[in-house]
Amino acid sequence: MGVSGVGKSTIGQLLADEMNLPFFDGDNYHSKHNVEKMSSGESLNDDDRHGWLSTLNQLIKEQLKNNSCILVCSALKNKYRELLSDGILNEIEWIYLFGDFDTIYNRINKRKNHFMPSELLKSQFDTLEKPTNAITCNIDNSPKEIIENIKKELMKKSEFGLLGLGVMGKSLCINLSNNGFKISMYNRHVDGVEEHVALKFKKKHTELSSALPFDNLEEFVNSIQKPRKIMFMVNAGKTIDAVIENILPYLSEGDIIIDGGNSNYNSTKERFEYLKSKNIHFIGAGVSGGEEGALKGPSIMPSGSREAYKSVQPFLESIASHDRNGLPCCAYIGPEGSGHFVKMIHNGIEYVEMQLLAEVFSIFKATRKTPDEIAEVLEIWKKDVDSYLLNITIDILRKKENNDWLINNILDKAGNKGTGNWATIATAELGIPSTLIASSLFARYTSSFKEDRIKANISFGNNDSSNIKIDLIDLLNAYQFARIINHYQGFKLIEEASKFHKWNLNLSEIARIWTSGCIIKSDLMAVLVEVFKKSKSILINESIKQQLQVLRPSANKLVSQCILNEIAIPCLSESVNFLNTYTTADSSANLIQAQRDYFGAHTYQRTDDDSGKFYHTNWKN
Amino acid sequence: MGVSGVGKSTIGQLLADEMNLPFFDGDNYHSKHNVEKMSSGESLNDDDRHGWLSTLNQLIKEQLKNNSCILVCSALKNKYRELLSDGILNEIEWIYLFGDFDTIYNRINKRKNHFMPSELLKSQFDTLEKPTNAITCNIDNSPKEIIENIKKELMKKSEFGLLGLGVMGKSLCINLSNNGFKISMYNRHVDGVEEHVALKFKKKHTELSSALPFDNLEEFVNSIQKPRKIMFMVNAGKTIDAVIENILPYLSEGDIIIDGGNSNYNSTKERFEYLKSKNIHFIGAGVSGGEEGALKGPSIMPSGSREAYKSVQPFLESIASHDRNGLPCCAYIGPEGSGHFVKMIHNGIEYVEMQLLAEVFSIFKATRKTPDEIAEVLEIWKKDVDSYLLNITIDILRKKENNDWLINNILDKAGNKGTGNWATIATAELGIPSTLIASSLFARYTSSFKEDRIKANISFGNNDSSNIKIDLIDLLNAYQFARIINHYQGFKLIEEASKFHKWNLNLSEIARIWTSGCIIKSDLMAVLVEVFKKSKSILINESIKQQLQVLRPSANKLVSQCILNEIAIPCLSESVNFLNTYTTADSSANLIQAQRDYFGAHTYQRTDDDSGKFYHTNWKN
Repeated sequence: MGVSGVGKSTIGQLLADEMNLPFFDGDNYHSKHNVEKMSSGESLNDDDRHGWLSTLNQLIKEQLKNNSCILVCSALKNKYRELLSDGILNEIEWIYLFGDFDTIYNRINKRKNHFMPSELLKSQFDTLEKPTNAITCNIDNSPKEIIENIKKELMKKSEFGLLGLGVMGKSLCINLSNNGFKISMYNRHVDGVEEHVALKFKKKHTELSSALPFDNLEEFVNSIQKPRKIMFMVNAGKTIDAVIENILPYLSEGDIIIDGGNSNYNSTKERFEYLKSKNIHFIGAGVSGGEEGALKGPSIMPSGSREAYKSVQPFLESIASHDRNGLPCCAYIGPEGSGHFVKMIHNGIEYVEMQLLAEVFSIFKATRKTPDEIAEVLEIWKKDVDSYLLNITIDILRKKENNDWLINNILDKAGNKGTGNWATIATAELGIPSTLIASSLFARYTSSFKEDRIKANISFGNNDSSNIKIDLIDLLNAYQFARIINHYQGFKLIEEASKFHKWNLNLSEIARIWTSGCIIKSDLMAVLVEVFKKSKSILINESIKQQLQVLRPSANKLVSQCILNEIAIPCLSESVNFLNTYTTADSSANLIQAQRDYFGAHTYQRTDDDSGKFYHTNWKN
Repeated sequence: MGVSGVGKSTIGQLLADEMNLPFFDGDNYHSKHNVEKMSSGESLNDDDRHGWLSTLNQLIKEQLKNNSCILVCSALKNKYRELLSDGILNEIEWIYLFGDFDTIYNRINKRKNHFMPSELLKSQFDTLEKPTNAITCNIDNSPKEIIENIKKELMKKSEFGLLGLGVMGKSLCINLSNNGFKISMYNRHVDGVEEHVALKFKKKHTELSSALPFDNLEEFVNSIQKPRKIMFMVNAGKTIDAVIENILPYLSEGDIIIDGGNSNYNSTKERFEYLKSKNIHFIGAGVSGGEEGALKGPSIMPSGSREAYKSVQPFLESIASHDRNGLPCCAYIGPEGSGHFVKMIHNGIEYVEMQLLAEVFSIFKATRKTPDEIAEVLEIWKKDVDSYLLNITIDILRKKENNDWLINNILDKAGNKGTGNWATIATAELGIPSTLIASSLFARYTSSFKEDRIKANISFGNNDSSNIKIDLIDLLNAYQFARIINHYQGFKLIEEASKFHKWNLNLSEIARIWTSGCIIKSDLMAVLVEVFKKSKSILINESIKQQLQVLRPSANKLVSQCILNEIAIPCLSESVNFLNTYTTADSSANLIQAQRDYFGAHTYQRTDDDSGKFYHTNWKN
């Protein structure tokens, strides 16, 4: 835009060539009546312009369906620009060329065959309302300089947006910046509670010098290059739906939202469909690694349309952790919902890993070991069962405060944020018994009834387990044993969900992106990458099976000792029970079938008839 | 209805007095124009009648808003009757008075001040189209006889409808009939699969001589007195929604649907609201007792509006079982959804009771006892742990077929129909650990992987548990112990759900209606009726607590023996683990809180600060 003669066509054509976009000169779309009027030396009035500007607006819309375009038009007044950008406000970048009257007057007088007499230039200057939201270029500069300047200004926009500056969101911002990406960061404004969060965060971290901070959603969105890539790091549930509704009016078709929170996979499917109907891409991405992982490299589990994923892949792969072979711990998981499902099971496995360490801690405590002594043993265990959670447990046990171990002053009511709960629901719904996830969830629930536990402890009499003698090798073996069962169950659930939802998930690849960056990274996980290349079940792998057989007697012995000493070990105990159930060829479920047939005529099948026929018996006679 | 002079007003007024309903004479609602026309000896044409009949139709509709009414009107043609019943087709009962020409002619000529000349009688007879769906009365009979006849015909309608003649539906039909209720029975027609189900069923059972069989839904509905009471005994889920949609067009405002199936309580809430919007009452009623209970007296758990329940109470209480004090095992549970919730937990407790017996069976089998020998021991156990499920287990173990025990030929893949699954989901959602329900559900799930189990059994080597020596008293004690924990957990879940949903449930009353008629009736349940009169938790009852303390060492010993011998006992084992967890005053959940704070900055509370403040630590330093 700019007054006639300012050089819009020249600059526009050059810019179009440079950016490989189609070029249109607005003047070529005047009606015959307008052309004649101008040729006769008359200024156009606003009525004359209205149809013309609408034609141009339509032209731009047509072009935006495919890609974009460069259009030149004087567009001197705000209302002309409003007409031009009607319905596509967020998709237009204004570039304003300006110069002084004399320069332009002289340029026009040198032209041939231009239909506008230079005498009208004065009226153009009078009419001009300078734009406030445009890239502004002085025509004293050479065309080359002007083009360079425009490109530079266009590039000023961020490549990636991050919405929600909680613990994880902040860490990801620094990670993205450290990887050289120019980002926009947004956090909502809540009077007295969340004020200038993004700005304060930027000021605190030199790594964020090029990041743009916002607490205005529209400005945040407009600061990002199209198609926009915006990652949400907000609470799952109602919050994310509210944010989607708030941001939608500012988005353009083809923009991509990434939900990096722990959303329920069913909700992610619904949001995917909803946003698809608005022509917005939606990528549900599980992100694991906690604060540190998010900062230094998390494990990322994106899902949704594979095409949309390709646009965000460079960002996600750059910020992800790397496995032992240098590959990013980020891989396209599968169709919509699958990424959050896999993350949910990741968290389920994590619940169990944490609960197993807590049970190991209980047993150590019963043997009257101090936290430091326990840490010392666990330090030795690293040789056999190294994992991130084992390492942080050692750090925790060693942490002191005022000459006492901090762990001794932490309240034993374990919190949970939904994923363990959903994983248990998924195991119930799919009919696949991930019993350890349920056990560890229930252990957290029971822990929350602290007051009841204290009363019950008094009422039932204290367990005196000071005499317990635990063989440390049994404890290590039982822990190893239970971890294998945990991983078997978790991956089995993923495998069966994959079949049920037709997701076609790659178990080995999932194990691979969990070997680094995430909370459940461990030596065992690295082994599983190879195991899943050969089979979809851990328990039929010969080496794993042999390992379990070696560990099993220790596990049996330890669990039985704990039960006799009334030490609560629901997960260790269930690991043993599960394998016993799973390896029972002829179980007592036949009695259950008989009972169901007895009272409810539910019928049963027979072992001596493999046709699958159903029988009913009158049991009383 | 009937020709002029047939005696409609007389009979109508008498019937209205007898039935305590308002009476209206249609002739009083003619327009002035019609009255003049008739007085001048002219017949009315159909145009004259149209406005009049619409007025009467409005009048009836107004009356039906409150109760009902008696209206007399000649209504000679089908199309007049259609106009009268427009929009209220299902709510109208037609009574047709008829006599011969001479009788009526003479009667009219005796009248004074009647505005219709008796000469028009002939035209009335010509116009009359006899109704096919009316109660028909000959005026040769005395008014008293006519009234008696009408009442008898009205009473011919059924008092109660039962829809869905599966195992449970059929048993309830016979139960209702045996209790003297006149019922209508409906089963859908499916070519070649379900044909004349209701009719065939009626023919097979002399008890059903007064029951009306249908496979046409409209006729079924019309055969029932208003407000109709119709009990659905169909599959939960989509089926019930489909049946509701199919039956809705035939129902009248104020009719009552009872869903006696195992519907999900959340769906029941939704259906309640949906039907409320259609002015239909909906009672979700859990029904337990299996085939035999349904026949001889089930336990019934109705919920919904208390007012609607009062209408169906006489039916449900009559067919229900009776407790030891002679009270019906049917009690209003609470607001919509609560009946099916309570039934769902009933089934959860049932899952565990069945699984515990299956585990006891496994242990007996490991000691090389035959089914008859096991039955013999269980027979002795009745003294201590009598229950319906124990009794049928004894029957089952003794059942022989071709000189072998039938149990030996039953396939050990246990089925499930949703309630155990939903109970597990409820326990996860509400944060209340009913761990045994989950364990028994998962045991059924694992049993369904029969082929995997056989392979795993071979691959991991057979457990040789022939040497196991079980002290029978330990087995009995462990079984008793686990049953108490099971009942504690089940009722705890009901109690917490009641708080959460503000249902205000009565635990003692729930235990009472479970003392007879249902699958989980037992001596223990009878004890709990009294326990819950004193407290809402089993575990703080002194007598139960002492019992548990006596049983606990046996349970610990037995579980530990089984684990060392690799006998699968997930539920017995979990019962011990649960009490250990529940009686641990200072658990290792503090480690879990520390881990969560370490990797996710989730914060923790402290034992030395009871303000509830949340702390975060930088654990690495």
